[in-house]
Amino acid sequence: MDRVYNFSASPAALPTEVLVKARDELLSYNGLGISVMELERNSSEFTSIVHEAEDCLRRLMNIPSNYKVLFMQGGATLQHSAIPMNLLSAQRRADYILTGQSSKQAYSEAKKYGDIAIAASSAGALPIFSAVPVVTRSDFRPDADYVHICMSDAVYGTKFHYIPDTGNIPLVADMSSFILSEPIEITKFGLIYASAQQNIGPAGLTVVIVRGDLLGNARPDTPSLMNYKLMYESSSMYNTAPIFSIYVAKLVFEKILELGGLDEMKRRTEKKASVLYDYFDNQSYYTATADKNCRSMTNIVFTTGDGELDKRFISEGAERGFLNLAGDKSIGGMRASMYNSMPYQAAIELVEFMKEFAVNNPKVQT
Amino acid sequence: MDRVYNFSASPAALPTEVLVKARDELLSYNGLGISVMELERNSSEFTSIVHEAEDCLRRLMNIPSNYKVLFMQGGATLQHSAIPMNLLSAQRRADYILTGQSSKQAYSEAKKYGDIAIAASSAGALPIFSAVPVVTRSDFRPDADYVHICMSDAVYGTKFHYIPDTGNIPLVADMSSFILSEPIEITKFGLIYASAQQNIGPAGLTVVIVRGDLLGNARPDTPSLMNYKLMYESSSMYNTAPIFSIYVAKLVFEKILELGGLDEMKRRTEKKASVLYDYFDNQSYYTATADKNCRSMTNIVFTTGDGELDKRFISEGAERGFLNLAGDKSIGGMRASMYNSMPYQAAIELVEFMKEFAVNNPKVQT
Repeated sequence: MDRVYNFSASPAALPTEVLVKARDELLSYNGLGISVMELERNSSEFTSIVHEAEDCLRRLMNIPSNYKVLFMQGGATLQHSAIPMNLLSAQRRADYILTGQSSKQAYSEAKKYGDIAIAASSAGALPIFSAVPVVTRSDFRPDADYVHICMSDAVYGTKFHYIPDTGNIPLVADMSSFILSEPIEITKFGLIYASAQQNIGPAGLTVVIVRGDLLGNARPDTPSLMNYKLMYESSSMYNTAPIFSIYVAKLVFEKILELGGLDEMKRRTEKKASVLYDYFDNQSYYTATADKNCRSMTNIVFTTGDGELDKRFISEGAERGFLNLAGDKSIGGMRASMYNSMPYQAAIELVEFMKEFAVNNPKVQT
Repeated sequence: MDRVYNFSASPAALPTEVLVKARDELLSYNGLGISVMELERNSSEFTSIVHEAEDCLRRLMNIPSNYKVLFMQGGATLQHSAIPMNLLSAQRRADYILTGQSSKQAYSEAKKYGDIAIAASSAGALPIFSAVPVVTRSDFRPDADYVHICMSDAVYGTKFHYIPDTGNIPLVADMSSFILSEPIEITKFGLIYASAQQNIGPAGLTVVIVRGDLLGNARPDTPSLMNYKLMYESSSMYNTAPIFSIYVAKLVFEKILELGGLDEMKRRTEKKASVLYDYFDNQSYYTATADKNCRSMTNIVFTTGDGELDKRFISEGAERGFLNLAGDKSIGGMRASMYNSMPYQAAIELVEFMKEFAVNNPKVQT
């Protein structure tokens, strides 16, 4: 079968050119006669892949030298534990903003390790979590060790349309479904983390970007592999790094650099998303559920308002080569995730299909 | 370049047929038009890969139904923390047997979590760690929550030639460089763990096989992703599993089943190792450092006794297509790791090279 349009939120589609390159050298990396997966962990090829991946990411995101880049395992979920274990001080106090599933999960996990407060929540928005709360410094406890946000919620299709001002309190952000979709000002954050399987590479890799002065305060019982300082000191090779995932990530970073970097990704991401949002705003058959000023550009969540029609839309879409349009199972409806590897043409064709579906499936007047 | 003989201990060579299959369907898994790496995490294809990998491993290792199979991340290193966090009871007491680097690391990490004792050690053997201590029940504290061993030490090239009798105390074994090289009696163990990158698949995956009654006692501050019970209840999909690594592991398991299972792997492993050990035992140029009755069949450690000659051997070997013959950097010398994917012919050719090298590089009489 030809490659299809895969709207999966996680793991998401990868750039075809990256997959082609990975395929072509799967049995012999750099003409060595062995696969990337078979590189000895202390070999120069192995360590070069890790260092080059970091260099590419630093250039791509314009990461200042006082920020450390770590390649870790365990996804965002393991960071939900690693963050409090590494960043809480003796008073063990942190504030969380809840904007959906991922931030709720981060909050629950953090409670194992300290006095964790909900500084703000959009649970009360209607539809639930459809907006992102607007916060000011006064919403945070002045002695909090950090403030945690999820930059973009993949389930509800929202994103922070501003960076919360936390004053001197380090801001920690889960950027899993946001990273590499536009430039960000790194210095506004104390720590940024992202699972790879949205805009970076295969599942099994997590990127952590952390301000240097936040290292070295981990609880004594922090597992070594989750200790940011040990990971930094070993250049992310405290044990055998998930080299194939890092290698694919490096290919993705190189591809984005070649295409023009994050300014270009932002232009493309917004252009693609606009095709859908513009359509939604000019008809009444489908509803985009996120508040207009909180709309994610990567996860576009919508519904016909009728569960049966939604199901039919998803299955007919799949037959037509629009894969994984189902919304998160916790809320149903539809979701079109369009990260960097999704071509503009996919958005155009998806809207064509939407129009056709609306004509062929008129809603019964009640 | 043609594929070469890769004697790397970690990550090790994978079966060429597995890499060919992974390559051929890298852009379109099962004709779906998307890569394994792009499968949506709740899709039937994604979950089937995880379930089938488990089924294959259960058949291959003859795992009883009261043992749970978990696919985790973070390598053996994260298990060094997860094991005490999950298995220590209120008294927090465990006994470790030290037979090399990996078991020492496991011991140091465990000390963060409880009263950890060294029940036995082969640090005093000459050369250091060249033997495995013989222990009896009386060597363990009767109230220890578990006893930890490293079944086979990849640095010193030794293995346990017997399974320690720990009575009612669960025996926990790191089998990273031993697993799938021969059948084992699972019921002799409380928990078996292994990083994938020796005999299973790509780095970034860890297999844990744990007796069901040992679940459910994790410390309250155990990170969720390291909690065996949560991992079991979610069929190893508590978060997005490292699907590509699990997929490659499944292909490896299928390949071994097709070849005749672990009895056949044992026959092959011993046959390959014997080519080297028989040669070592009948000449005096090279010395195999492990005690005869503790020899690993997968990591064969040897030296000429002369650091300069060792270096020359390693570099000339590499030029001849025998890659990664260097011993662990902590001890130097040479190591030929020959896991399941290494053909018999490699052992034959390696010995031919050894003979030739010995003739061409006579030792200076001192």
